[in-house]
Amino acid sequence: MTRSDREPPYEPPYYAVIFTSELAENTDGYAAMADRMVELAAQQPGFLGIESARDGLGITVSYWRDLASIAAWRANLEHLEAQRRGKAQWYRRYRLRIARVERDWQFESPEGLAGQP
Amino acid sequence: MTRSDREPPYEPPYYAVIFTSELAENTDGYAAMADRMVELAAQQPGFLGIESARDGLGITVSYWRDLASIAAWRANLEHLEAQRRGKAQWYRRYRLRIARVERDWQFESPEGLAGQP
Repeated sequence: MTRSDREPPYEPPYYAVIFTSELAENTDGYAAMADRMVELAAQQPGFLGIESARDGLGITVSYWRDLASIAAWRANLEHLEAQRRGKAQWYRRYRLRIARVERDWQFESPEGLAGQP
Repeated sequence: MTRSDREPPYEPPYYAVIFTSELAENTDGYAAMADRMVELAAQQPGFLGIESARDGLGITVSYWRDLASIAAWRANLEHLEAQRRGKAQWYRRYRLRIARVERDWQFESPEGLAGQP
């Protein structure tokens, strides 16, 4: 087996917020807001991690200890303002899903492991 | 309210497979395999949808009716071969999460709705 499953730094069950979006024409201010939201999310209680990619469709998945952490983050005042601007200006459409992570595993190639510090 | 939440075409609870990956140096054959896996997944019982983006980090989230559908897809012979090649060649690392989607909502801007057929 070339598999090399390691334990992630946090164990299921935990929660994922899956945010998929398409941007509208006017993206002024979007990149700065997105960076700020990642920074701000990372300071919230219960935050576990975030992963993001965009090529046309954007997908951001953030990970949280429990539903209460997600509810608190959604109600954060600065985040609420970003949500308001997102709907008014930046997003053509988005979909948001809250999901309970039940299993989690990973693979790292020998090449990947060799690149670790 | 500018919100325009619509019902998605499928209702929670359902399942998400969150696959995040970084590619290794040699990506020969990767794009064709990735396209084929999307095509093949869409033919499987219980498949609900798939969303994908890559910019450095790749994130693919596929949606399934239940855990049995996911188990059957993971055991598909052509998919098993893609998994084998992925570990041997294409992926530097990946993480796979299976999550139960408990809530799901979406927003569509007036601009986005105007662009619908």
